[in-house]
Amino acid sequence: MIATATIPLLRELRRRLGAENVLGAPSELVVYECDGFTIEKNRPDAVVFPRSTEQVSEVVKLCARYGASIVPRGAGTSLAGGCLPVGGGVVVMLTRMKRILTIDLRNRMAVVEAGVPNLELSRALAGSGFHFAPDPSSQTASTIGGNVATNAGGPHTLKYGVTLNHVLGLEAVLADGSVLQIGPVPDPAGLDLLGVLVGSEGTLAIVTKVWVRLTPNPEDYRTLRAIFTSVDDATNAISDIIAAGILPAAMELMDQGIIAAVEEAYRFGFPLDAKAIAVIEVDGPAAGLDEQERRVETICRRWNAREVLRAADPRQRELLWKCRKMAVGAVGRLSPSYCIQDGVVPRTRLPHILRRIAEIGAKHRVRIVNVAHAGDGNVHPILLFDERDRDEVARVLEAGREVLAECIASGGSVTAEHGIGVEKLDFMSRLFAPADLKAMRRLREAFDPAGRLNPGKLLPSECGASAQT
Amino acid sequence: MIATATIPLLRELRRRLGAENVLGAPSELVVYECDGFTIEKNRPDAVVFPRSTEQVSEVVKLCARYGASIVPRGAGTSLAGGCLPVGGGVVVMLTRMKRILTIDLRNRMAVVEAGVPNLELSRALAGSGFHFAPDPSSQTASTIGGNVATNAGGPHTLKYGVTLNHVLGLEAVLADGSVLQIGPVPDPAGLDLLGVLVGSEGTLAIVTKVWVRLTPNPEDYRTLRAIFTSVDDATNAISDIIAAGILPAAMELMDQGIIAAVEEAYRFGFPLDAKAIAVIEVDGPAAGLDEQERRVETICRRWNAREVLRAADPRQRELLWKCRKMAVGAVGRLSPSYCIQDGVVPRTRLPHILRRIAEIGAKHRVRIVNVAHAGDGNVHPILLFDERDRDEVARVLEAGREVLAECIASGGSVTAEHGIGVEKLDFMSRLFAPADLKAMRRLREAFDPAGRLNPGKLLPSECGASAQT
Repeated sequence: MIATATIPLLRELRRRLGAENVLGAPSELVVYECDGFTIEKNRPDAVVFPRSTEQVSEVVKLCARYGASIVPRGAGTSLAGGCLPVGGGVVVMLTRMKRILTIDLRNRMAVVEAGVPNLELSRALAGSGFHFAPDPSSQTASTIGGNVATNAGGPHTLKYGVTLNHVLGLEAVLADGSVLQIGPVPDPAGLDLLGVLVGSEGTLAIVTKVWVRLTPNPEDYRTLRAIFTSVDDATNAISDIIAAGILPAAMELMDQGIIAAVEEAYRFGFPLDAKAIAVIEVDGPAAGLDEQERRVETICRRWNAREVLRAADPRQRELLWKCRKMAVGAVGRLSPSYCIQDGVVPRTRLPHILRRIAEIGAKHRVRIVNVAHAGDGNVHPILLFDERDRDEVARVLEAGREVLAECIASGGSVTAEHGIGVEKLDFMSRLFAPADLKAMRRLREAFDPAGRLNPGKLLPSECGASAQT
Repeated sequence: MIATATIPLLRELRRRLGAENVLGAPSELVVYECDGFTIEKNRPDAVVFPRSTEQVSEVVKLCARYGASIVPRGAGTSLAGGCLPVGGGVVVMLTRMKRILTIDLRNRMAVVEAGVPNLELSRALAGSGFHFAPDPSSQTASTIGGNVATNAGGPHTLKYGVTLNHVLGLEAVLADGSVLQIGPVPDPAGLDLLGVLVGSEGTLAIVTKVWVRLTPNPEDYRTLRAIFTSVDDATNAISDIIAAGILPAAMELMDQGIIAAVEEAYRFGFPLDAKAIAVIEVDGPAAGLDEQERRVETICRRWNAREVLRAADPRQRELLWKCRKMAVGAVGRLSPSYCIQDGVVPRTRLPHILRRIAEIGAKHRVRIVNVAHAGDGNVHPILLFDERDRDEVARVLEAGREVLAECIASGGSVTAEHGIGVEKLDFMSRLFAPADLKAMRRLREAFDPAGRLNPGKLLPSECGASAQT
């Protein structure tokens, strides 16, 4: 809370960073009240645009002097409120730190500033035979710093892992303004600061530079679309593909609700009575792929797939992915508002959770359709509503909470990739035992004793309270 | 330091665990003075053999009451002194907690107690089509708990990653005796306690149970042995294989010194004038492998390999791996004592570090031969000596220190897989800036304010000092 100290702090920030890099007028600040998560709104006291780690460090030191809290922010695509300025504070925009500093193919490494958009890096790598593997749906906009903050995943997480598996080193500014560098050695000694910073949602440090691992492009792909008459069959096929020792690059699932939405919006010609459609892709050395494709098809047919379409060429592959990628957009054409949830369950619990989601939707009279990174057990129920209908909004919120509670009850978690932010704070105490939360709080306090880095996120309020003592 | 409190503590431990599970007599304790790292010796005050997490928790609470420090220990294969009882304390043996609790192929997961030997799990999985990927050289003996403590790697780390990449969840006893469970959800929310516990060498908690990811066995292999007339050629070939987008399962390098040792010991028929031998293995779907093998061979020949042998059958493959795996044993037949170092450099710095290792050996009149997980830039110089020759021991210690310092100067680190233990404490302040070490100390204190978990390891003494305040 910096209300009274705001004016001198603003003056200092402008002096250090240049007036053009500091916003302080209410009309300018309103844009930074929210991110992809729009239900709560909080206005920051200032927004700054540093251009270097040194400037970030200066900002952090100034904020420390004035007791202001700090909210690091990349592209603001968080769906969980990860960059809401809860109770004010200074928003530190990393978007102007967007240089790709080094590309080193022989060491399979690139060095980027935190504000580089995810897809920019893979674009810069075009023709090199390498790419940056994490591919969140937001990848055209979201920054690599943001991917690090949430330990982002995507359809290809199944085979290639989450962001942490692709980070070799970090430069970060700590709560006292000092600058930490971890790595980029392949296997750093000592306590794993890298592991704990990745996914910490800006509560431990502000990441300014990232050494990322580059992944060789697969030589070729095979992409299949299988249509099932029951969700159980589809998810059983997916589990059996894994149990057969095949590790597809992606296994995406769309349920009947989303199929209907896609058809209403785009008329791809899917059968409306299909209960589930799976898009499965295998990749790797070209010579091995036909055999893998054949085995995937056999398993799908064993689980009663009524149709298995193999993409015959890159254009057909593109089209199959388009169905999947346009699914969320299709929903936007059907409903004035929608809310995408992010839950995860053990893969074999997918039939159960999808059944329960349908029941919860019926109970609260909320239309819920589902897309899922099914290979990972990661479900993205999409709740459709009209935000002008306050009763419906209340039912959507309650249904969302029940869905997440059911994920926990099924041995899963309330976020696979979007983070806790402010949206899911309430679930932390259901997800973790008191000893677990206590260890997390101590860890946070070890990095940020005054609790000024992205307060009100990630850990429930007892943390905020103890941090103020 | 528990000297005076030892007798009542021993009595309590015996009462809780049964006398047969507690050692306290000096003649019994002498075995636990050292591990694979034999230069320093410290006698513990007691050694206990709990059979459950509850018993570990009881032991930890008792130790807290009596102010005794605790040293968790698995198979004791550490080469860095990770389980030396520095200044006494209670050694908690995890070796009787060796049950494999669950194997769940459809979720690609197994649940094991911490004392299960690494290879036992893969043996239990025989015929299932899956294995546990981390394969440290010690894998017949070392426990999965120990692999977690050091975040162990092995020849297959290049493709399959370190232990952290294969851990889905942990159960661990904290310094106050409370029990923490993290995961086993695929992507746990909150601060990444799992990331920070893996590799923490028993300084944050005692890991008692591990949820591990299972890896599908590759359908087939191709194994090549390439003989080079210069180390630069060999390492250039290795870097080019990576830059070509091929990710071999393993790329192992032996230098002229180790070739000579292997020949002296076993007479495999290697040319003694060869400067380096690389063993390279690709794995995956069978159909793609011949093409990859051909490309690897082409790159080796482009870098002047004078001979490239492709293993024609499993027996020949076995023989190629035997050369590599018997290399360390060969050294044992040549020298009364030897010390294996563990350093890592960026892959492209391998020629430089191997050249410098030779110079350092010459300077100190110490024979040094090298094996390397070259794909990872991980070098294992083996220093040969006679431990009865005190002057030579001193020269070996100094040469070892210089080799590690050179790894740091080359942008690398002093351990890729064995950990810091007590052996490499002195290097931490060269490896990390004060801000980095301070963050690690705070992190450690957050978990273990009294500094009683595996004291004297991992972080240099300032930590021990501040922990006692």
